[in-house]
Amino acid sequence: MLKDQHILRIPGPSPIPPSVQRAMNQTMIGHRGKETKELLERILPKLKSVFGTKQDVIPVAGSGTAGLEMAVSNAAHPGDDVLVIVSGAFGDRFAKICEAFQLKLHRIDVEWGDTIDPQIVQAYLQEHPEIKVVFATYCETSTGVLNPVQLLAKTVHESSNALFVVDGVSCLGGVEANMDEWGVDIYVTGSQKAFMLPAGLMFIAASERAWKVIEENPQPRFYLDMRVYRKNLEKVSTPYTPALSLLFGLEQVLNLLEEEGLDNVYRRHIVMRDMTRAAFKALDIPLLTSEEDASPTVTAVRPVDFDAEALRSVVKEQFNLTLAGGQQHMKGSVFRIGHMGYCSPADVLQTISLIEIGLVKIGKEIPLGKGVQAAQEIYLQQEEK
Amino acid sequence: MLKDQHILRIPGPSPIPPSVQRAMNQTMIGHRGKETKELLERILPKLKSVFGTKQDVIPVAGSGTAGLEMAVSNAAHPGDDVLVIVSGAFGDRFAKICEAFQLKLHRIDVEWGDTIDPQIVQAYLQEHPEIKVVFATYCETSTGVLNPVQLLAKTVHESSNALFVVDGVSCLGGVEANMDEWGVDIYVTGSQKAFMLPAGLMFIAASERAWKVIEENPQPRFYLDMRVYRKNLEKVSTPYTPALSLLFGLEQVLNLLEEEGLDNVYRRHIVMRDMTRAAFKALDIPLLTSEEDASPTVTAVRPVDFDAEALRSVVKEQFNLTLAGGQQHMKGSVFRIGHMGYCSPADVLQTISLIEIGLVKIGKEIPLGKGVQAAQEIYLQQEEK
Repeated sequence: MLKDQHILRIPGPSPIPPSVQRAMNQTMIGHRGKETKELLERILPKLKSVFGTKQDVIPVAGSGTAGLEMAVSNAAHPGDDVLVIVSGAFGDRFAKICEAFQLKLHRIDVEWGDTIDPQIVQAYLQEHPEIKVVFATYCETSTGVLNPVQLLAKTVHESSNALFVVDGVSCLGGVEANMDEWGVDIYVTGSQKAFMLPAGLMFIAASERAWKVIEENPQPRFYLDMRVYRKNLEKVSTPYTPALSLLFGLEQVLNLLEEEGLDNVYRRHIVMRDMTRAAFKALDIPLLTSEEDASPTVTAVRPVDFDAEALRSVVKEQFNLTLAGGQQHMKGSVFRIGHMGYCSPADVLQTISLIEIGLVKIGKEIPLGKGVQAAQEIYLQQEEK
Repeated sequence: MLKDQHILRIPGPSPIPPSVQRAMNQTMIGHRGKETKELLERILPKLKSVFGTKQDVIPVAGSGTAGLEMAVSNAAHPGDDVLVIVSGAFGDRFAKICEAFQLKLHRIDVEWGDTIDPQIVQAYLQEHPEIKVVFATYCETSTGVLNPVQLLAKTVHESSNALFVVDGVSCLGGVEANMDEWGVDIYVTGSQKAFMLPAGLMFIAASERAWKVIEENPQPRFYLDMRVYRKNLEKVSTPYTPALSLLFGLEQVLNLLEEEGLDNVYRRHIVMRDMTRAAFKALDIPLLTSEEDASPTVTAVRPVDFDAEALRSVVKEQFNLTLAGGQQHMKGSVFRIGHMGYCSPADVLQTISLIEIGLVKIGKEIPLGKGVQAAQEIYLQQEEK
């Protein structure tokens, strides 16, 4: 096997564009100097475009989970009733954080692979007017569903006074965010998914309504206190040492997104999803999620007549192609393909062609090339639109 | 289109492995110090393995053409009768250099796309005992043929006392070199092809027989005087400033080749050639060269019912996939696919899937996916061997 080739198709961390890698190698600068201020001045307005908000988007050194905790610990305090809508492992993580912060946890659990039905949420909120915050996951990484954030935001606001907090970790930057228009109160995302950066940076933004709650929230917090970051952003600064090399990379990521055009970026992700799904349908291999629920950033496949783990092993061994396995109770029964960030339709075609070879290697009879063909057809059709 | 993705499938310069890119970013060191000597000590023995020789392999800062000139200007002097076997643009370049150096040029021109028939060379040498040097091209980049160097070396030595000089620029590192065993007198190659480095470095080695000629050659030369390099290599040094960052990269390239195993590297290139050829055959698109003559590093395709340049444009525009066009009189009538160095069967499958889309885009009716399927089958068959 060719050494030093890594074909990384997990739903994050995702591959880094070479120009971003180069940007991150810039010489270190003083984090309190003029250059850092100028860097932030260039970055911050572009981040707002990706979030679709006029509010500040705060970059914080920390992983996506730190972002989820920041959302929880700033939006609620011990004793608050909160509702977490759990559609997979990352909804579950939101719930665990709420428990750790001694919130009164209400959960709506959705079958893994399904999205949240806004009507159920509406009914629950009408029955439980004490709920102060509703937490939801935009793209549920563990199943590859994209929850209907726009509809959910509308439902939450129409049926309660609760804040609506969204984990956008595995999709923001790859799908529409529309924070202000849809009425998302707190949005969180991480750097290592559609943002095409290494892990270590997360981004959080809050609506005016949310800021009122955050400002008055007595919850003890220090590093993840959003108020301190907001105060520092007024003077285009950060309260604690910023992860400078990641910010260097972030600037280049934002340049790349701008150069391609956000609408084109979102369209590219939809095409990649449709190509991936068409391939597996052509090969008669079941997908975990329905057409309507599928995320443009990750696809979960649920094999019935072959071993997902055997396939993952063989493509890793043959091509150094890394696919993700299932999480929690889906371990072993699904595999997941990340197609987000620095990933193109060309990469999807490659991935499918390698998976087809992997399937033959593990003894599954498939018509070689048929998945690729179906994906090629989708590419050509999309181009015609 | 995804920004910052370059799918480079020309027959060199070829893509650089990330670890080589990192190696080249090492801090600059003193070129006369201990570190440089130690670097050369690590590099030189490994270079010999790639060339298949016990002789010194000299790394020189310069492009492949500088290497060809070094071979010409060290092996012959004005007035010498030399034979250049021209099977394409790079054989022609050898001839041009010989003319520039006022050698008495004999040429055997082979139809582009064919290899050299050793019998013709034998007859010519028997008729022209005055010929002192025979120049040949191993892989002719412009046509994708791999000339039968082993047979030619045998022929030259059996039918004359001439030196046999081989341009291995677009294949060494990707195919067997066997310099000592086959009796190649001077081998030249460049860094930017199967050596997976940027252009700017070339390598040259000479047999004992050749060194005798070189040492006594009165041809005026300075920078490209092989004697000076040989003398310096005795003390593990270089006469002029070495291209250090390329040497940093070279060390990592040699590590990668060693890690994969040279035999596996050569097998990978053969598989990539066979996959590429099978794909075009399945699509019923003619190849320029025959099965026996085809190089493992580059494939030339000669379309009859579509425009090669239109295809190249469309895949560039859609996927940033760069294919090479034809050279000299083949401009416009062929296109060429490089599959050498940092290139894997996975990359070949991607390239074919994109070319298929490109063909549909320019209006050629092809069965989508069929080329990919044929290449996948070759991969699976080769694996079984």
